[in-house]
Amino acid sequence: MTHRSRLTAVLVDVPASDHDTAITFWSAALGKPANRVDKYPEYAFLGQATPGIEFMVQGTGDDGPRIHIDIESDDVEAEVARLTALGATEIGRHNSWVILRDPVGTVFCVVRVQVQDAFDAHATTWD
Amino acid sequence: MTHRSRLTAVLVDVPASDHDTAITFWSAALGKPANRVDKYPEYAFLGQATPGIEFMVQGTGDDGPRIHIDIESDDVEAEVARLTALGATEIGRHNSWVILRDPVGTVFCVVRVQVQDAFDAHATTWD
Repeated sequence: MTHRSRLTAVLVDVPASDHDTAITFWSAALGKPANRVDKYPEYAFLGQATPGIEFMVQGTGDDGPRIHIDIESDDVEAEVARLTALGATEIGRHNSWVILRDPVGTVFCVVRVQVQDAFDAHATTWD
Repeated sequence: MTHRSRLTAVLVDVPASDHDTAITFWSAALGKPANRVDKYPEYAFLGQATPGIEFMVQGTGDDGPRIHIDIESDDVEAEVARLTALGATEIGRHNSWVILRDPVGTVFCVVRVQVQDAFDAHATTWD
């Protein structure tokens, strides 16, 4: 069985109290309108900052601010297993995604395929 | 006068003592060989994680780890002026790039054009 993965998103995470400030800034900085959806009120979606890379601003309960990246995969469990074998640590699950830390402590997530055309064109295949 | 800018890079910043660990992990995680150059020993260049987005692992003297993003521009000074007018704060300069914080505190940089073909195709024009 093979699976595939690809860097798919950059997310600016800020305390919830600073969410609107961060959304306003990054929307103007990148020239992308911010979209909110009722299902995920903690996010603002700025679309693709450059083709194939989505950009989001997330209001969190954590300390912040920080930036994290999402890796999309057609097999989230296989990708998490591959990355933990490389030294990452799973630290949580939320909806369909898995939150990990790299061996130094950097937080990132593995998510389902988000940008299908870029995934099909550019994902890396893992044996 | 107009200028242009575009999201061009994602950088994982780690304490210098963890640099090799982070390079090994992210090179394997993304399936990209890490290249070092004598001029910039604090960086490892993993090429384009997906077309148009360069990925680097930086050993810093800061606390870490963190991820930061680079915005490339054909006029660094004009882009810094635009972003500071939006509420960012300049916090440093290093070689040809400028280090800023967004209004919430997220660190990012404005750099010269790094990926010319993607810049030409996808940069946003600011009046």
